Amino acid sequence: MTNLLIKKCDVLSFAGGKAHVETKQDIAIQDESISAIEKTGTLQEGNFEQCIDAGGMLAVPGFINTHAHVPMVLFRNLAEDVTISEWFNDYIWPMESNLTEEDVYWGAQLGMAEMIENGITCVADHYFHMDEVAKAVEMAGMRANLVWAVFAHQGEEMLDKTIDFTRRWQGKADGRITTWLGPHAPYTTNPDFLKLCAQKAQKNGLGIHIHVSETAAQVDLSLKEYGITPVQQVRDCGILDVPTILAHVVDPRGEDFDILASHDTGIAQAPKTYLKSGMGLAPIHQYREHGIPFGLATDGAVSNNTLDIMEQMRLLALFGKYQTMDSTCMKLEELMEITFHGGAKVMHLPEKIGDLKPGMLADITLIRQDGLNSTPKANSLAYLLYCAKSSDVDTVLCNGKVLMQGRKLLTLDKARIQQEVQSRLQRLSQRMPNERIAFYPA
Amino acid sequence: MTNLLIKKCDVLSFAGGKAHVETKQDIAIQDESISAIEKTGTLQEGNFEQCIDAGGMLAVPGFINTHAHVPMVLFRNLAEDVTISEWFNDYIWPMESNLTEEDVYWGAQLGMAEMIENGITCVADHYFHMDEVAKAVEMAGMRANLVWAVFAHQGEEMLDKTIDFTRRWQGKADGRITTWLGPHAPYTTNPDFLKLCAQKAQKNGLGIHIHVSETAAQVDLSLKEYGITPVQQVRDCGILDVPTILAHVVDPRGEDFDILASHDTGIAQAPKTYLKSGMGLAPIHQYREHGIPFGLATDGAVSNNTLDIMEQMRLLALFGKYQTMDSTCMKLEELMEITFHGGAKVMHLPEKIGDLKPGMLADITLIRQDGLNSTPKANSLAYLLYCAKSSDVDTVLCNGKVLMQGRKLLTLDKARIQQEVQSRLQRLSQRMPNERIAFYPA
Repeated sequence: MTNLLIKKCDVLSFAGGKAHVETKQDIAIQDESISAIEKTGTLQEGNFEQCIDAGGMLAVPGFINTHAHVPMVLFRNLAEDVTISEWFNDYIWPMESNLTEEDVYWGAQLGMAEMIENGITCVADHYFHMDEVAKAVEMAGMRANLVWAVFAHQGEEMLDKTIDFTRRWQGKADGRITTWLGPHAPYTTNPDFLKLCAQKAQKNGLGIHIHVSETAAQVDLSLKEYGITPVQQVRDCGILDVPTILAHVVDPRGEDFDILASHDTGIAQAPKTYLKSGMGLAPIHQYREHGIPFGLATDGAVSNNTLDIMEQMRLLALFGKYQTMDSTCMKLEELMEITFHGGAKVMHLPEKIGDLKPGMLADITLIRQDGLNSTPKANSLAYLLYCAKSSDVDTVLCNGKVLMQGRKLLTLDKARIQQEVQSRLQRLSQRMPNERIAFYPA
Repeated sequence: MTNLLIKKCDVLSFAGGKAHVETKQDIAIQDESISAIEKTGTLQEGNFEQCIDAGGMLAVPGFINTHAHVPMVLFRNLAEDVTISEWFNDYIWPMESNLTEEDVYWGAQLGMAEMIENGITCVADHYFHMDEVAKAVEMAGMRANLVWAVFAHQGEEMLDKTIDFTRRWQGKADGRITTWLGPHAPYTTNPDFLKLCAQKAQKNGLGIHIHVSETAAQVDLSLKEYGITPVQQVRDCGILDVPTILAHVVDPRGEDFDILASHDTGIAQAPKTYLKSGMGLAPIHQYREHGIPFGLATDGAVSNNTLDIMEQMRLLALFGKYQTMDSTCMKLEELMEITFHGGAKVMHLPEKIGDLKPGMLADITLIRQDGLNSTPKANSLAYLLYCAKSSDVDTVLCNGKVLMQGRKLLTLDKARIQQEVQSRLQRLSQRMPNERIAFYPA
């Protein structure tokens, strides 16, 4: 049982519908939830087992990472300045052919540690050897939705193994872990396999996390091959009949917007990946107009280089203003709504995370506001969006437990993790010319 | 006299023409310059008065900020989500009508402190009450080109006062300070005033730092009013006959490229400002094709929110790839060249700063490479461009002197500066509806 008081912080919340900051608040936590938020001094400190003095810090809901390949931190900075097909076919998929379970275990820990340092408390992860990722999540203390990625060429047997994985971990780690299915993408599966995934998801009460319409070339290829867009294809195959996370959807077309708006889906947006990979930018303003939920994501560190939602948030604001050439759009409050509410919706946890108020899960990130980049202290939302760095994150709680305090990680062994990952670099960075786990066609 | 050895660092340099990193190097500094860079162990530690152990850190040339309004950190986060004309006419110029010399003194110190923390050693600053900025530069230990901004409506008398300023500070602070003239922009001056500035700059042996073609609307207005672009106007008025820094030039047209390529000029690029203000993006690929030098800049913190060149460098890479939709352009090495060589060229100091080799000034920034965001350590250039945060800057030297070590500022009183700036916020954030220092017409 946790019984904790966070004292003297400024609190970002959506009370009244719009993001705003209340200064000098205390947050009371009972077990895994927020039990009260009151003006400092109202709650009796003596009634709490533990107190955290957050004097002057900004408390925000834990950042939500709606799409990642966390263990890919193993390959960080190893595939720079290449085309997308080179990235997949000459770098990532050859390198991933060297991957062992133990590599994933340590890579997952590195990624979790990095995310906690960056104030992220919840992640939707899409990778391989997912038992190892689940172990890392359990240990790290984060919240996660996990899927085991599967390609059509691996067949029904592998798909069934990924369903076994969901059974092993569903609801584990004090309920912090949920598990879904993870067919990789329409371009690495086929309509029959997608239908099979949808049927098995339905039967097992699972959602699906899948890459869709990442580039114009992918959409063109789908139109040529099937006469429909990837969004239409996942709809036609029944994927959208279960809860879904759609990664990227950078190039939806025509009818796609209505399809997305009328299903229980949310889109993960990783602008750094899109810019860096020359993929263009998603039509986020049209998503807003159509009421299609979207949140922020880091994608994998081989395309995005970091696991930092604060960076994605800033990029989304900047490119949103750029897209319209209108500096008055993408206002501070709107970015807060996308980051926290949008992220919670994409995770299908809108009543549980993404806001700070009594009854919500105690996933809380405390951010320092005493640096030179926050001087003068005049506007906490502008500071958070345009000035703060993830290194300003001081303390992180998830599910009522403290995962980092004063930038010291409490659940993971940082030095050991770094040593383990570094020791694997030489082997993992080798690219076998004829070994790759799949082929990128577009 | 300084006599200093920086030990065991990785060194970014352009030896051989292309940016690369040599590991395990020692850098020897004699007085204000680099005297040697050798493999660790080659130079005898006993021969040096002071040693800095930079084990595993990345040494880069001090970051160069080619256009700023440093004291505007005073107004940080006070003008968000507004149009450019609102930004000038309703926020900045009314707020600046409250500005005193002492405000500028403390604002300049805050900005210098922030820049040093972010690894910046050299800045081209364009503001008011510039004696106060010069005092702050002298104290901070940075390198700076300073101009006192002047509008046409202030007349020749004020222009002459800004020339007096150049005489008071030219070559001061051990040669770290140079001074030029700073007519604000073609849209706040007029051809006669620009000609006067050019004549007086010629006569006094001074360069000119001026805003040019920041937006399409400004260029359209100039075409309507004068039949020529702002770039043509500064050429026709003789401004380009002296050395110049042109801030922004986001919208050059037609003949402008040839004009820029054939004069002794350099362009300052602040992508965060352009994106955030809905100004579009400058044609940086065309600048490259035309051989027009450009470097990075933070602009003022009221549009850019931070004084962080590492952030601008990353944005330039990301948006450069976005502009072409080609992930193979804007390669790591090219960004290094723009950031360091480009910045040095814009500052008109290409033989002195922007590289690490014997004979260059000892302006050096040491960046940690032991964080989670640099694990595994595989590619220092990719780390620097896509992973590192300015908070990873550990130690900063300028002109052979240590300004920050282990993130502790050695020349400025951080707590006092923060207190002084915060105490001025209430007065400075007041906007007098009918008081503004100039009027923005576009």
